[in-house]
Amino acid sequence: MIVAKIGGSAGVDLDAVCRDLAELTKAGRQIVLIHGGSHETNVLSEKLGKPPRFVTSVSGMESRYTDRETLEIFEMAYVGKVNKSIVERLQKLGVNAVGLSGLDGRLLEGRRKDTIKVIENGKMKVLRDDFTGRVERANTHLINILLSNGYLPVITPPAISYEGDAINVDGDRAAAVLAEALKADTLLLLSNVPGLLRNLHDPTTLIRSVTQDEIDEVMEFAQGRMKKKVLGAKEALAAGVQRVIIGDGRRARPISDALAGEGTVISKAQ
Amino acid sequence: MIVAKIGGSAGVDLDAVCRDLAELTKAGRQIVLIHGGSHETNVLSEKLGKPPRFVTSVSGMESRYTDRETLEIFEMAYVGKVNKSIVERLQKLGVNAVGLSGLDGRLLEGRRKDTIKVIENGKMKVLRDDFTGRVERANTHLINILLSNGYLPVITPPAISYEGDAINVDGDRAAAVLAEALKADTLLLLSNVPGLLRNLHDPTTLIRSVTQDEIDEVMEFAQGRMKKKVLGAKEALAAGVQRVIIGDGRRARPISDALAGEGTVISKAQ
Repeated sequence: MIVAKIGGSAGVDLDAVCRDLAELTKAGRQIVLIHGGSHETNVLSEKLGKPPRFVTSVSGMESRYTDRETLEIFEMAYVGKVNKSIVERLQKLGVNAVGLSGLDGRLLEGRRKDTIKVIENGKMKVLRDDFTGRVERANTHLINILLSNGYLPVITPPAISYEGDAINVDGDRAAAVLAEALKADTLLLLSNVPGLLRNLHDPTTLIRSVTQDEIDEVMEFAQGRMKKKVLGAKEALAAGVQRVIIGDGRRARPISDALAGEGTVISKAQ
Repeated sequence: MIVAKIGGSAGVDLDAVCRDLAELTKAGRQIVLIHGGSHETNVLSEKLGKPPRFVTSVSGMESRYTDRETLEIFEMAYVGKVNKSIVERLQKLGVNAVGLSGLDGRLLEGRRKDTIKVIENGKMKVLRDDFTGRVERANTHLINILLSNGYLPVITPPAISYEGDAINVDGDRAAAVLAEALKADTLLLLSNVPGLLRNLHDPTTLIRSVTQDEIDEVMEFAQGRMKKKVLGAKEALAAGVQRVIIGDGRRARPISDALAGEGTVISKAQ
């Protein structure tokens, strides 16, 4: 079983992802897809006159400040636009895809953090009414029912809190939790970079292979969102996933290439 | 089995619908929900600077002209906003809802009409690149899998064409096809009116009961969208559904009241 996460950043080629996925599933590979939608959310937010607001937590992580209005824009972009466009592409290619958000059947469950401490202009500030959180559990029952009946699940944030609120969650972490829960052997994290680079601006500095006990060493090279990918990889390996590949979603065969080792392959220590 | 269609017009109280549905399902009633989203689509279209355009076909039916851009707005409103808000409400009430569009698992399949003949300013005009169509089949396999595993399906347009395109379809007709395919005994069509009225502007002229062979007679009282509801009822009865109730979605217990006969009850001739 493979869990493939397709980032929502600009540049990722969804046509290529879907063509590749269709070929792989027809060849018998069992794949669950999870995707993001950050770029489309930014575009829609701007169009609706509610520009995105990114905040940096005291622990140094960047996230989208998600009040109720932003949450609804987020759902329209992730679920209404990106998820349905992927399902439509796959259906056209003969793959019986079923798109689900983390709300549906409580597919991705987690803890809501309604108050976050952020640093703005060097000062600590408390933001309330935030609909963000952290995925802690995945409902494998629903996914397995779909898989065993020939449907390919296409999963997207938001997740659902234990109290039943929709929450904006990090998609890489959601993918890691999903891979653990499904006992997947491989987790792919594809976005608009070749993998983990020693120098962010030089694609020739790609780190091709990392073992589990080297993860903390390479963490220093991870900038911005790449930090969450490396942390997600670390957690997934600790929970039993065999390998995590951080690959390039802009290639002609993004999933096949990542499975063949293109990108940064992070695996259990020998 | 009951199929309940909740219209997407302004005024329908989704909180009340969900509370009522939660009580009924906990009391053991098996219900499949299908909903619209026309009002939210209009609001979003206006906000995005792409005002809705309604056209009247040569046969006198009004519909939303749906080019590709409108289709994406339609999906964001119906799937991203309305469907997810219903699923979230139901989850909060302890109902394990799963939201699905007609694309997912080819749940609602139909014929796309890419060219429509319309009357504008008294003249016949041909519009191309329209993503509208007509539901002809429902995938009961997926719905039954969900029901038998304790999930409540919450279904929304768009449907999928035989070629795999997302298509804007009439929700009342989709509900009728769904009721037939699921061999439901009862189909509820709830919107922001008390039922079929002899005089559109006078709620005291509610027609309480219609038998199958009286449908053509009462058709003269059906204006605008009500025409599609009465036609949907006619088709559903012809296909084996026992009764169709056109009820009021603005009441405190809209589903229970409709089931108790509040509204226009259209049933098989004795």
